[in-house]
Amino acid sequence: MKIRTSFASDNNSGVHPEALQAICAANDGHTIAYGNDPYTETAIEKLKEHFGKSIDAYFVFAGTAANVLGLRQAADTFHSVLCADSAHIYVDECGAPEQYIGCKLLPIHSRDGKVSVEGIQKHLHGIGFEHHSQPRVVSITQATEYGTVYSPEEIKTIADFVHERDMVLHMDGARLSNAAASLGVNLRQTSADVGVDILSFGGTKNGLMFGECILFFNKKLSQHFKYIRKQGMQLYSKMRYIAAQYISFLTDDLWLRNARHANEMALLLAEEVEKIPKIIITQKVQANAVFAIVPAEAIPLLQKKYFFYVWNEKTSEVRWMTSFDTQEEDVRDFVDFMRQIVK
Amino acid sequence: MKIRTSFASDNNSGVHPEALQAICAANDGHTIAYGNDPYTETAIEKLKEHFGKSIDAYFVFAGTAANVLGLRQAADTFHSVLCADSAHIYVDECGAPEQYIGCKLLPIHSRDGKVSVEGIQKHLHGIGFEHHSQPRVVSITQATEYGTVYSPEEIKTIADFVHERDMVLHMDGARLSNAAASLGVNLRQTSADVGVDILSFGGTKNGLMFGECILFFNKKLSQHFKYIRKQGMQLYSKMRYIAAQYISFLTDDLWLRNARHANEMALLLAEEVEKIPKIIITQKVQANAVFAIVPAEAIPLLQKKYFFYVWNEKTSEVRWMTSFDTQEEDVRDFVDFMRQIVK
Amino acid sequence: MKIRTSFASDNNSGVHPEALQAICAANDGHTIAYGNDPYTETAIEKLKEHFGKSIDAYFVFAGTAANVLGLRQAADTFHSVLCADSAHIYVDECGAPEQYIGCKLLPIHSRDGKVSVEGIQKHLHGIGFEHHSQPRVVSITQATEYGTVYSPEEIKTIADFVHERDMVLHMDGARLSNAAASLGVNLRQTSADVGVDILSFGGTKNGLMFGECILFFNKKLSQHFKYIRKQGMQLYSKMRYIAAQYISFLTDDLWLRNARHANEMALLLAEEVEKIPKIIITQKVQANAVFAIVPAEAIPLLQKKYFFYVWNEKTSEVRWMTSFDTQEEDVRDFVDFMRQIVK
Amino acid sequence: MKIRTSFASDNNSGVHPEALQAICAANDGHTIAYGNDPYTETAIEKLKEHFGKSIDAYFVFAGTAANVLGLRQAADTFHSVLCADSAHIYVDECGAPEQYIGCKLLPIHSRDGKVSVEGIQKHLHGIGFEHHSQPRVVSITQATEYGTVYSPEEIKTIADFVHERDMVLHMDGARLSNAAASLGVNLRQTSADVGVDILSFGGTKNGLMFGECILFFNKKLSQHFKYIRKQGMQLYSKMRYIAAQYISFLTDDLWLRNARHANEMALLLAEEVEKIPKIIITQKVQANAVFAIVPAEAIPLLQKKYFFYVWNEKTSEVRWMTSFDTQEEDVRDFVDFMRQIVK
Repeated sequence: MKIRTSFASDNNSGVHPEALQAICAANDGHTIAYGNDPYTETAIEKLKEHFGKSIDAYFVFAGTAANVLGLRQAADTFHSVLCADSAHIYVDECGAPEQYIGCKLLPIHSRDGKVSVEGIQKHLHGIGFEHHSQPRVVSITQATEYGTVYSPEEIKTIADFVHERDMVLHMDGARLSNAAASLGVNLRQTSADVGVDILSFGGTKNGLMFGECILFFNKKLSQHFKYIRKQGMQLYSKMRYIAAQYISFLTDDLWLRNARHANEMALLLAEEVEKIPKIIITQKVQANAVFAIVPAEAIPLLQKKYFFYVWNEKTSEVRWMTSFDTQEEDVRDFVDFMRQIVK
Repeated sequence: MKIRTSFASDNNSGVHPEALQAICAANDGHTIAYGNDPYTETAIEKLKEHFGKSIDAYFVFAGTAANVLGLRQAADTFHSVLCADSAHIYVDECGAPEQYIGCKLLPIHSRDGKVSVEGIQKHLHGIGFEHHSQPRVVSITQATEYGTVYSPEEIKTIADFVHERDMVLHMDGARLSNAAASLGVNLRQTSADVGVDILSFGGTKNGLMFGECILFFNKKLSQHFKYIRKQGMQLYSKMRYIAAQYISFLTDDLWLRNARHANEMALLLAEEVEKIPKIIITQKVQANAVFAIVPAEAIPLLQKKYFFYVWNEKTSEVRWMTSFDTQEEDVRDFVDFMRQIVK
Repeated sequence: MKIRTSFASDNNSGVHPEALQAICAANDGHTIAYGNDPYTETAIEKLKEHFGKSIDAYFVFAGTAANVLGLRQAADTFHSVLCADSAHIYVDECGAPEQYIGCKLLPIHSRDGKVSVEGIQKHLHGIGFEHHSQPRVVSITQATEYGTVYSPEEIKTIADFVHERDMVLHMDGARLSNAAASLGVNLRQTSADVGVDILSFGGTKNGLMFGECILFFNKKLSQHFKYIRKQGMQLYSKMRYIAAQYISFLTDDLWLRNARHANEMALLLAEEVEKIPKIIITQKVQANAVFAIVPAEAIPLLQKKYFFYVWNEKTSEVRWMTSFDTQEEDVRDFVDFMRQIVK
Repeated sequence: MKIRTSFASDNNSGVHPEALQAICAANDGHTIAYGNDPYTETAIEKLKEHFGKSIDAYFVFAGTAANVLGLRQAADTFHSVLCADSAHIYVDECGAPEQYIGCKLLPIHSRDGKVSVEGIQKHLHGIGFEHHSQPRVVSITQATEYGTVYSPEEIKTIADFVHERDMVLHMDGARLSNAAASLGVNLRQTSADVGVDILSFGGTKNGLMFGECILFFNKKLSQHFKYIRKQGMQLYSKMRYIAAQYISFLTDDLWLRNARHANEMALLLAEEVEKIPKIIITQKVQANAVFAIVPAEAIPLLQKKYFFYVWNEKTSEVRWMTSFDTQEEDVRDFVDFMRQIVK
């Protein structure tokens, strides 16, 4: 099924023309493979402009890999990684962290996708006791899987708590751009500057074709990572084609323009949907997701025309995502259709 | 360093214009993610045209992943995988097969990169003995890392031997196109038709941007593979951009045109180089690689202008690779330069 | 610290004289190593007498290994194992299942250590969805970590539910003897006969020196297990010394005499403790454990003389275990001391 | 088959009476589990007497575990471990090192079981190259699988070479006692004092019942090991029963008496066998093994009465092992029988 637009996921969208143009422009003769090329060099420089000079940055193919290989640097097999029970690493990676790292993942129950210090604390027992996986990493998602956004202060609070216990803070930033756009801050103000140690910085959900970036703000944690990336089946031979995308992403605020637009479309969708009496918005709309409870009988009717995911069958809660290429018209058409269906 | 052309590796080259055009054309609105899109459907159809209707085919990001995840389907942790001591899986994947699968790799010494039945036989002991990793898979590379090519009969002989012992034949076909072009056969005549069970079918070294394909000719071996691909961090969200490349690759013989040209350039290079008295070609030139012993003192002088790899420091044996975009003029310039240096 | 008796754990106790005598008697000349000896043969026969003729049985060194290697036979890396949030495999094996198997463990909240069908059901979503670890095994503990015991009917209900979904039922039977003694049934009536597929049958906590047994009641699940045991570092060379213990354990009801006594001592302890007003028994005493809330200030005073574990610091809940060698006098002394401390 | 004596393996033998007596004596009341007991404390003290005060020592159940968990401390997944192609870790552990550690094992061809600096050197390439598993550990076996023994100087040479390259020297000392007895040195003179970093110190093949010891002479390498042992399914609950054995082993030279006797029996066997014209001793007899080429047709006839292993079917080379309990009479009977068979 070819579809014009959907509210299923931001990775159903295509590639922003500027990113595609960058890929095409990089297709010029030979370069050395595996990242030893001028495009990658420039992309790393761009990353340093945005995240600070002391970073260590590595490109990989995909977001799951960015999370897993990044976490692998902080967590040994006998460690545990604490995360929200809705975290991508916990529910959407088919057990890749456990398989690849060999560590334990411990879920923290959360209604809005955010981890709290209290939630972390519940898992902090058995320290030094060899029968117990040792808590080592807290992983947070920014923006969360529920489209909510941590304030910089919230992150700082978690980071301080974590660091006082000699633990590491990991951030799944598949939608970091959307969070920063929502907060009105730059990329480092919601990551490096507030205590994140390891960041998965995503582009694919925000208008790039492929390729994600792992950033280490604590260089002790990036030791030997080049071997891990290769062994982890994530060293791309023709690296320039990821690098070129990131150069465009971090030039003239493409990351921000794309994210801001997606966020605005989500807000518009939420505002319009709220006017429909039988639909209840269930989460704060802070990024590019709208969660809503819809009359159960309406869902299949809506899905006949628009593809999207049911988040919770029991409560008939659904998720709608917007993206860089969602048009205002698409949103209005969708809401109009919804209004007809849900009466 | 931006380089016009190099003889270092076929993955230093760029992307063929037809493949790039296919990517751009696929950038049209939304499609469902993770391979449930019409591009992927068409690409699978194309693969079936070339490899037979009963295949199971999956795209992944990279060649190392294609090898490792494919082998993972046949080898349990207590199995061994037998391969040439020069095999990519043995020497160039940073131990990914051992790490990911947990199995043992057993090297078969080979001067030309080919595995022989005698070489396999040496490892067939301790069968049924629980102290010993059980031989389960033979992996061959077509074309080999030395640029040599197995004849279909050679593969058939190995396949029969392997299957009689209830073992599995895996083929690393990162350069299958070059082998088929060299043999003057189609893709299946040197893989599915001669007994290969699992194939890594590569495109990146032959003019594509990214994405490799794992083909299962024995469907018992592909069971549950969708989970393995996801857990293996190799499920691409915007799959259409790999699929579109493979559609172009398998249309109008792009795979063959590219491979044939690269092979011809290697032959030309070898012919010209052979005229230089102090350089000795060390392997049959059957695909797109030329191996040669060059006077040790000449190597750094050559590398000042042309980037390539020294294969064996002790014997001063070097490897030169050609690719789809190597120009006859590039070859002649390189040989002229060599002639000046090596007198 | 040498201690006469303790209520800390049943593995603080020694070895029953009959088991020790069996070990000594086996120390007679040479036998073939790795289990190909007459002692192991006899032990397997004894196991068949108790658990049925169609079992496949393997000895390993320890209980954690029995659980992990047994589960490994049913769970692939992309599977999940569902268990109580107090299960030994979840909280007391330092993440061994995740590390060794590579699978996901999903906790089911339970106040009394028992898993319910409702609890299982909460995790049964995302079936067939490749982003989600696939639910494959339910693991229950008999007797539970809280000293409670599943009735045969309860197990049957879970087994039926599990088997209808093509899943596997695993039982951690580290204290299976205590459960059977408590229920007044034989060993198979609370395992094989009610639908358990894989059983860790423990002896060390019930008077043996070392060695646990993995029983497969479904032979499809034991395929290739001999390799897994060896590779899992659990193949004992001088196997006769484990086998001899199990022969004694399963002869003249040693398993039952030991378990019944331990259970009786736990009941006595609970009865006497209940008379102390400020102490509250928190779990049904069905096996050899007593859980109680004790005034927080009394705990360190009690621990000066008696070693035992605090189960929950916040609620000042403690665990007392009895064992085959706990004497009635020990219990009465302990309770007397408690009465003095807790006034 | 119950057998009085065999020449198959030193682990076909039983337990020395002093070790068994130590086990029985330890069966006295309760002690704290998992190694926090006075027996373990004393055993560690004994180990320090023999190996030096700065060691870190841990007991595990079996030799394969001692090797694998010890190596795991030095080798990350992207490392390689270099060892003789006859090493137990390479051929007799069913791939446990690869499965558990995830690293690569690289074989060094060796006729007598010893690793040479030249053999190590062949694998020292691709350093710093991320496509290549990084050489990190050299593992040697003392005495070797061929019954030969490294001199202290030979070990020192390897150790110096290894340490200069920031690598680690591991020793599989399953038969360290036999080597020390053969060399006429104490245990540390052939391990700690000559540069070994991690040692598997075995007892089971030399008269103990079960339990092996991992010694770290470089404490940087033992960091976090308590978690690895537990997660590796090798933390024994009733630890006192291993500890008691090691106390006896290291008291009144039991280790030496046992090893010396086994070695003497091997020498006697070799001397007598050499007198039989058609049998050729193939390795130096320096520990408790005799390797010999025996007429092929004689082997099944010999095996009717004496159980032993054929080492190499093609050359009809066999291995005979002696042990602490081999009697001179057993040896003479065996040789007499051989003389009748091989005429």
